[in-house]
Amino acid sequence: MKAALWYKKNDIRIEETKEPKLNKGQVKIKVKWAGICGSDVHEYTSGPFVIPTKTPHPLTKDIAPVVMGHEFSGEVVEIGEGVTKFKIGDRVVGEPQIVCGKCNSCKSGKYNLCPSIACIGFSGNSGGGFSEYAVVNEDFTYKIPQSVSYEEAALTEPLTVALHSTRRANFKAGQTALVLGAGPIGLATIDCLKASGAKLVIVLQRKSIRQEYAKKAGADYVFDPNEVNIPFEVRKLTESIGVDVAFETTGAQIGFDTGIDSIKPDGTLVITSLWESPIKFNPNSILFTEKTILGTLGYRHEFPMTLALLKDGRIEGSKYITKKIFLDDIVEEGFKTLIGPHRKKHLKILVTPDKSLI
Amino acid sequence: MKAALWYKKNDIRIEETKEPKLNKGQVKIKVKWAGICGSDVHEYTSGPFVIPTKTPHPLTKDIAPVVMGHEFSGEVVEIGEGVTKFKIGDRVVGEPQIVCGKCNSCKSGKYNLCPSIACIGFSGNSGGGFSEYAVVNEDFTYKIPQSVSYEEAALTEPLTVALHSTRRANFKAGQTALVLGAGPIGLATIDCLKASGAKLVIVLQRKSIRQEYAKKAGADYVFDPNEVNIPFEVRKLTESIGVDVAFETTGAQIGFDTGIDSIKPDGTLVITSLWESPIKFNPNSILFTEKTILGTLGYRHEFPMTLALLKDGRIEGSKYITKKIFLDDIVEEGFKTLIGPHRKKHLKILVTPDKSLI
Repeated sequence: MKAALWYKKNDIRIEETKEPKLNKGQVKIKVKWAGICGSDVHEYTSGPFVIPTKTPHPLTKDIAPVVMGHEFSGEVVEIGEGVTKFKIGDRVVGEPQIVCGKCNSCKSGKYNLCPSIACIGFSGNSGGGFSEYAVVNEDFTYKIPQSVSYEEAALTEPLTVALHSTRRANFKAGQTALVLGAGPIGLATIDCLKASGAKLVIVLQRKSIRQEYAKKAGADYVFDPNEVNIPFEVRKLTESIGVDVAFETTGAQIGFDTGIDSIKPDGTLVITSLWESPIKFNPNSILFTEKTILGTLGYRHEFPMTLALLKDGRIEGSKYITKKIFLDDIVEEGFKTLIGPHRKKHLKILVTPDKSLI
Repeated sequence: MKAALWYKKNDIRIEETKEPKLNKGQVKIKVKWAGICGSDVHEYTSGPFVIPTKTPHPLTKDIAPVVMGHEFSGEVVEIGEGVTKFKIGDRVVGEPQIVCGKCNSCKSGKYNLCPSIACIGFSGNSGGGFSEYAVVNEDFTYKIPQSVSYEEAALTEPLTVALHSTRRANFKAGQTALVLGAGPIGLATIDCLKASGAKLVIVLQRKSIRQEYAKKAGADYVFDPNEVNIPFEVRKLTESIGVDVAFETTGAQIGFDTGIDSIKPDGTLVITSLWESPIKFNPNSILFTEKTILGTLGYRHEFPMTLALLKDGRIEGSKYITKKIFLDDIVEEGFKTLIGPHRKKHLKILVTPDKSLI
């Protein structure tokens, strides 16, 4: 089959590779659409981060070159032995996580924290979104509601990252939030907060088209930290108290500091972003106000929830799609666009291995 | 009455001062014993931190010089108008917090986060532990169980700081903990963890008599970070998982880092300590493992719980008392001991204004 394979930093090749083997309890999905994620770009420009290059991944036993793409939708074309929930022709999304099932995290249901976790699209041996076929365990495969298109369904994965972060924060209807950064995950967070009944969503975003995107996603206020003192504006909008939760998606000191300063006493700062270097932190800033900082990683058990939100229109997935391209063009039209001068315009670039869909 | 008054840094004077006025709803307590706290020493050597010196405190309307001492037990000698729960002669402890009762934190029961909070022994106008009398609101006054001595009861306040930190962490019976530092609050934390059913309590403490104190308080293992790699030892003792909760009481980078590295995925680091300067922090350290960092400050609603633990002997308060002195000697025998060469030997120095008790 044809696939985009990560060989090394700045080296992704479109090549023929062998189709992934369908094992017991798995379904084979013919990919319709797959999104390019920020972490794909990261692996392309500065990797490897999670791609195994020295020793095979303990769960997949595979090593680079690996097929990329972990945000995908498609059609079931083959079912493995023992599969009961799917039949050929089903429209599905695959949750890309592969876990050991035996560790303390897996056994307590927090499988996203499995120390041996693998990910389709990074860890090899399962095909992936940027190829013609992927194989996924039945339990990690979900039917797409009829009213949701394959394109929208390809957004399930990044939306679920955001949904999980709001659930980690224990965010409740009627509460208030600050979202730091309006990139794809920040926007998805705004969407999930609104879908969760947020009373007020304030967004930190420097001047760019992303300010407009934030408003479209449902932000009540969008502030540029170069123009206003955001913690001060937050207090004006929250009866001098601060927001219940802040979501850090910038990976920058200013996002962290603004988040801590803007949450109420006993409030929570959720760290969704990746960090390139350590920051300065004075723990007194959470001591005198009993604030909480917590990390959020991926998702668990939440794909069906996101699909439900897409189904009833509480989240409109299509607004994230800013470009649709053919797999053969993924480097030139996809990755290079997302690191190019107009990258801020783009939210989600979808890729298909099926030229008839373009 | 006689009292120890904080005038300025390095200037605490034993003087005659006016007795505090008894208001409606308050009781007047004749102090029996009061403990010297680390934050008293802090105000003495490097203050002011919380003592009002420029403008009067918004709740007490008072300003330095102020009577010190916020950990005290005593006898009710007068009751204000409307007081129903106490009578003259009752043995009591006073919770030193004075709050506005009107803010969002107070109204939601989290009165320790009241932005205008005052503290008897720092904010003036109520007498204090290092004087003959203190006045306390009836609702913040608690009867001492018969089996608990006045000396032990004077330990209620610091023990409650520790108890609150374990409750902030949602610590449950059968869980495991690492306590970073075995000063008075670290030791009280060990005690409260054991009283809460901890399965395993590991302690970081450099070589000093405090290692012995930690063992007496119930620590299962005490490790010196100069001798062993503590996160590695913690894993050996927890089936390679890490502890459920770590409690940071050192205020030092090594305590913070060891805490983060030693907790399990989804574990919690509780910040109890004060920090003199910012530290280095890479948020990735809590991102990939969904860890939580949270601040804890003082206590709320928990004095009766601590008194119950002292009553049934699950916490033995007397082991904390390393010296008992007369109020007149508080600077020479108290503060100077706690900053002197033998300070590590001392846990709690108790002070009395009543020479007959020595």
